[in-house]
Amino acid sequence: MTYCLGILLPQGLVLASDSRSNAGVDQVQEVCKLALITHPGSRVIAILSQGNLATTQSVVSQVRQAAGSGDVGEDVFLARTMFDVAGIVGAKLRQVIEQDGKFVAPYGDAAASFLVGGQIAGEPPRLFEIYAAGNFVEATRRACFQQIGETKYGKPILDRALKPDSSLDHAAKLALLSFDATIRSNLSVGLPIDILRYETDSFSAANCVTLEGDNPYWCELRTDYQKGLADLVNRLPPPPKDWGKPVPQN
Amino acid sequence: MTYCLGILLPQGLVLASDSRSNAGVDQVQEVCKLALITHPGSRVIAILSQGNLATTQSVVSQVRQAAGSGDVGEDVFLARTMFDVAGIVGAKLRQVIEQDGKFVAPYGDAAASFLVGGQIAGEPPRLFEIYAAGNFVEATRRACFQQIGETKYGKPILDRALKPDSSLDHAAKLALLSFDATIRSNLSVGLPIDILRYETDSFSAANCVTLEGDNPYWCELRTDYQKGLADLVNRLPPPPKDWGKPVPQN
Repeated sequence: MTYCLGILLPQGLVLASDSRSNAGVDQVQEVCKLALITHPGSRVIAILSQGNLATTQSVVSQVRQAAGSGDVGEDVFLARTMFDVAGIVGAKLRQVIEQDGKFVAPYGDAAASFLVGGQIAGEPPRLFEIYAAGNFVEATRRACFQQIGETKYGKPILDRALKPDSSLDHAAKLALLSFDATIRSNLSVGLPIDILRYETDSFSAANCVTLEGDNPYWCELRTDYQKGLADLVNRLPPPPKDWGKPVPQN
Repeated sequence: MTYCLGILLPQGLVLASDSRSNAGVDQVQEVCKLALITHPGSRVIAILSQGNLATTQSVVSQVRQAAGSGDVGEDVFLARTMFDVAGIVGAKLRQVIEQDGKFVAPYGDAAASFLVGGQIAGEPPRLFEIYAAGNFVEATRRACFQQIGETKYGKPILDRALKPDSSLDHAAKLALLSFDATIRSNLSVGLPIDILRYETDSFSAANCVTLEGDNPYWCELRTDYQKGLADLVNRLPPPPKDWGKPVPQN
């Protein structure tokens, strides 16, 4: 399993992924699921992956190889918009599945999906979720975050505390708390966390870092949150004696 | 979908279920998924259901009908332990699936699972999860809560704040917060919530109530938690400028 999260905000994007890849619980390795393809000053493209590792690596490697090739419809450096970049990734995914799917089927599932986020000069940052079918949906102000992989454990904190006009720092904090909830509940999602705080119009991915288990900020954040949450629950009033009607038994 | 939760504590049990039953999003109704079979002073048995409604109703109705019948192996009033009660429910589930499963298959899935909790005089309260296969596992001090149905959204709050020696009131509070997280994230889980706070050795289910959407305690709890959580996140420090190593891009 995997957990990847993308958040679209007026200030920019927060994109994060875990790093665990596994085939069963016996075969576990650390991989990078957040790929960057940048053209400093004019475009920053991030591709976050979940699903069959051979499929995701093939898609990302091919998209990366074609960058700068001059092949229209393949070269993300020629794409006019992030919508077109999402189309390139979706088409490449279809191609890989078409080529490998039937060979993989006896052993497992070749499927994969992606988050594609970034900015191309001339338009604001945009964020897309590429489905296993190769089609995609875009994040909007009303639905400002997208998740792939093990999405459920980390959703409540986002539903509760993320707003469409939250700051990048606030969103990055929430993204890490969302990962903390997921990592605590699901063994197949694991550290380190790769996370990009992309500032609108910066056209730089310098703010892309990897947080290991001993990272001081990560440790402080999850400890403080854990303690703060326990205190909060303790402060809430206990259920009163007569707090509802009897349950109908038919 | 459904969400049912059982918590086993030294002080007793907290058992809760939502009430939404649906076939697609067009056909939605309110049902009771928390069935009580009691013999005041000597045994309190609660059965919480998820899955195919015809299956769960058939199992619960037959177990209820056989209570007091004197049929050993069918009559939960003759069961010596809650382990034996779990066995009766599991066997009844197998019988219903054996009888109905193949007829239902063309239209959907006849599967169901249950939480069975309660106390029989002579032993402490016990809690079991009955799998769709009819076998079952028991909650323990180390694994003191069990969930069936839509389990993921509501798990992080329990993982963070529930302890094996939490009080019944604390656990009831957390159970409701766990339901709140689930209801916010999944349309197929809905109010009212039926909840039993069972006190060890009380042999009474008088504390079983139904909480509608306008219940004052429910409204206060979710509003205060929502506000407290937003405040907590705001108080946590923002990510520092240099907070991790660069992400390796191969």
